Amino acid sequence: MALGKNYDGQECSLAKALEIIGERWTLLVVRDAMYGVRRFGDFQAHLDIPRAVLSQRLAALVDAGVLERRRYQESPPRDEYVLTPMGRELWGIVLSLSHWGERHLTSAGPRRVFTHAACGTVLEPSSRCPTCQVQVPVGDVEVRPGPGLERSRHDQVSLALLEPHRMLTPISV
Amino acid sequence: MALGKNYDGQECSLAKALEIIGERWTLLVVRDAMYGVRRFGDFQAHLDIPRAVLSQRLAALVDAGVLERRRYQESPPRDEYVLTPMGRELWGIVLSLSHWGERHLTSAGPRRVFTHAACGTVLEPSSRCPTCQVQVPVGDVEVRPGPGLERSRHDQVSLALLEPHRMLTPISV
Repeated sequence: MALGKNYDGQECSLAKALEIIGERWTLLVVRDAMYGVRRFGDFQAHLDIPRAVLSQRLAALVDAGVLERRRYQESPPRDEYVLTPMGRELWGIVLSLSHWGERHLTSAGPRRVFTHAACGTVLEPSSRCPTCQVQVPVGDVEVRPGPGLERSRHDQVSLALLEPHRMLTPISV
Repeated sequence: MALGKNYDGQECSLAKALEIIGERWTLLVVRDAMYGVRRFGDFQAHLDIPRAVLSQRLAALVDAGVLERRRYQESPPRDEYVLTPMGRELWGIVLSLSHWGERHLTSAGPRRVFTHAACGTVLEPSSRCPTCQVQVPVGDVEVRPGPGLERSRHDQVSLALLEPHRMLTPISV
């Protein structure tokens, strides 16, 4: 059944948010950008996603103001994609949704553990640090492998994330 | 471009969560269930969604364990759909995503305001009550119209939500 991209008649802000990030793959692209993935080839290798779909998702996220496109090389021209402040604000949603998936849909234990870089405490699902009693933005988070991680993937992003990694820090430089 | 329902090769719990709630309309069905919508006709009238799509989404949410189907009338047989504990745990995600949409995608101010029923304090986007310093579950939340609400809809759900309403309290009884 074909459904339009918009939720006509649904004026609520949740519907508007879903028009942007509810599209298939989109929130996984955002998650990867939070890990520090910035380049087309890295997104593609890590997500195993068709090039056309990835191009469309990146363009839509740029249009919506979630990602910013930056030229990092002139010849040949190459762009990278960096989260805007608006995009970084999706962190709490990405983390909550991952926790929900983990609690209800997997049995292997967490694949990744997210801590407050300043103190090392594991974050609550809402990204609150129970030690410092603050809401932790994505740039202050460290990710490291958890007990549920399968080490079956060998793309550059998967390999970089086998070590502790500060979120938003570029994975390819 | 046709894309499968699964994110093959993406073992992360976010991808698994999106396989369930990332489908078009699904999170709006969950939001309505949080308002206390339980009956097919009420979902349909409030969401303006084709019957076939709504049937499929409700069935998928029951299969996934997010909604429970309950017979409320025997002749003719009629079922209602009620959030399970797993489904109720999506509240923080629904609220965060609504706030994000509100901050970045609308200019009219909040359509709905969510307060901690026990003390009347407006909740933070993570559903934390800043007065009581607790994480507030959906059943302890009250929703009332905000300044950005357009009063253009006249279905039973929209009308019920013009008054303060305790979340999860059935809208049709």
